[in-house]
Amino acid sequence: MSRTERPFDEELKMLKEKLLEMGARAEEQIALAVRGLKDREEKLACLVLDREEAINLLDIAIDGMCMNMLALRQPMATDLRFITSAMKIGSDLERIGDLAVNIAERTIDLLKQPELKPLIDIPRMAEMVQEMVKDALNAFINRDAVLAREVCSRDDRVDELNDQVFRELLTYMMQDPGTISVAVDLILVGRHLERIGDHATNIGEDVIYMTKGKTIKHHIEEGRATGLKSCSGGE
Amino acid sequence: MSRTERPFDEELKMLKEKLLEMGARAEEQIALAVRGLKDREEKLACLVLDREEAINLLDIAIDGMCMNMLALRQPMATDLRFITSAMKIGSDLERIGDLAVNIAERTIDLLKQPELKPLIDIPRMAEMVQEMVKDALNAFINRDAVLAREVCSRDDRVDELNDQVFRELLTYMMQDPGTISVAVDLILVGRHLERIGDHATNIGEDVIYMTKGKTIKHHIEEGRATGLKSCSGGE
Repeated sequence: MSRTERPFDEELKMLKEKLLEMGARAEEQIALAVRGLKDREEKLACLVLDREEAINLLDIAIDGMCMNMLALRQPMATDLRFITSAMKIGSDLERIGDLAVNIAERTIDLLKQPELKPLIDIPRMAEMVQEMVKDALNAFINRDAVLAREVCSRDDRVDELNDQVFRELLTYMMQDPGTISVAVDLILVGRHLERIGDHATNIGEDVIYMTKGKTIKHHIEEGRATGLKSCSGGE
Repeated sequence: MSRTERPFDEELKMLKEKLLEMGARAEEQIALAVRGLKDREEKLACLVLDREEAINLLDIAIDGMCMNMLALRQPMATDLRFITSAMKIGSDLERIGDLAVNIAERTIDLLKQPELKPLIDIPRMAEMVQEMVKDALNAFINRDAVLAREVCSRDDRVDELNDQVFRELLTYMMQDPGTISVAVDLILVGRHLERIGDHATNIGEDVIYMTKGKTIKHHIEEGRATGLKSCSGGE
C-alpha cells in the first residue's frame, strides 16, 4: 500500500483484519468441536457453544463496515467487488461457525453413549476443511486466484473421505444394530464437515470471481456434478 | 411506484422480477424432487438435475444486476440495503436449488431399493419449506417485516418435524437392520429439507434487517439456541 493512505485504504485494511479474525475463530471452532469429539471432552464442545456469539458479532461488524463503505465511499470496479465479496464471505464464515456448533451439539449427544471406535477419518476431514477455510481466506486477502482454485479442487477429496466414513458407518450399523444411534450421529458430523468444505469452496469461488471478474463457480459445480449422477431421462 | 420512473426504478423492478422468478424455480425444484421421491418417479428426479442450470444462471444474472447498480447508480440508504440484501437472497436461493438437487440425487439412490413405507412427514416438511421460501421472498419484495418474522418463526416447526422423522427412522433401523441403508438416505433428505428451511429463515432475517436497519438475526438464533442445549461448562 502507498505511503499516502486514503481513509478508504485504512477502512479496507480494517475490513481485511476483521475477516481474518473471523476466519481464525471459525477454524478454531472446527478444531475445538472435533477435538471434543475425538478426545471425548464435553468441556470443549461447551466452549464451542460459548464462543459462537463472538463470530456472530464479527459478522454483524463486517456487514456494517461494508455497508458504510458502499454508502459513503461509493467504490468502483476492483474495490466494489472486494467489498461485495467480503459481505458474502462473512456470511460463509458465519455459517461455518454454525456448523461447528452443530458438531459440538452432536458431540454432547455422542458423549452420552459408548464410543464406537477411535476416530481417525473424521479428525482428518476436520483438518482438511480447516486448511481449506484458512487458505480460501488468504486467497481472498491476497487476491490470489491460483490458491483459490487449488482450494476448490480440494473439495472433492473431502467429499470422498466423507463417502468413505459414511460407508464404513453403514457397515457398523448392519453388523450391530446397537451401534445405529452413535453411527447416525457420526454420519451427521461427517455431513457438517463436508458442508464446511462447501463453504470454503464458495469463498474460493468468490475470490476467483473477484479476481477474474467473471463467475466460474457454476462451471466448477458442473464439473463436479458430472462425476456424480447420470440420468437417463430429462426434459 | 410514481408515474415518472427513473431508469433506476426500472432496474429495481427487473431485479425484483428476476428474484421472484428464481424463487418460483427453487420452489418448483423442491416440489419436483420430493414428488419424485414420494411417487417413486425417477423421471422427476432427473428433471430436477436438468433444471439446476437455469437457477444458477439466474444467480449470476442477479449478481451482475446488483453489481451494476452499485457501481453506476451509487444507491443510498434504503436502495443500498435492498440491493445488498438481494445479492444475499440470490445466494440463498441458489443453495436451496443445490439442496433440491441433493434430494433428487438421494431419490435416485432410494429408487434402487425397496420402499420402506409410504412417506407422509417428508412431503409435509417439503410443503412447509416451500411455503417458507415463497413467503420469505414476498416479504422481501413487499418489504414486509411482519411476514418475514412469521416465516422465521415457522422454522421451529420444520425442525421439530425433522426430529420426528429422524426418531421414527431410527426405530425402523433398530427393528430391522435391513432398512438401514434406505432409512439413512431418508434421514439425509430430512436434513436437506431442514436446511432449506434455514435458508428461507436467512432470507426472512435479511428482510427484517433491511426494513428495520438493524441485525436481529443473531438474536433470533440465540432464542433458538436456548431451547437446544445446555452446557454446564464454558469459558
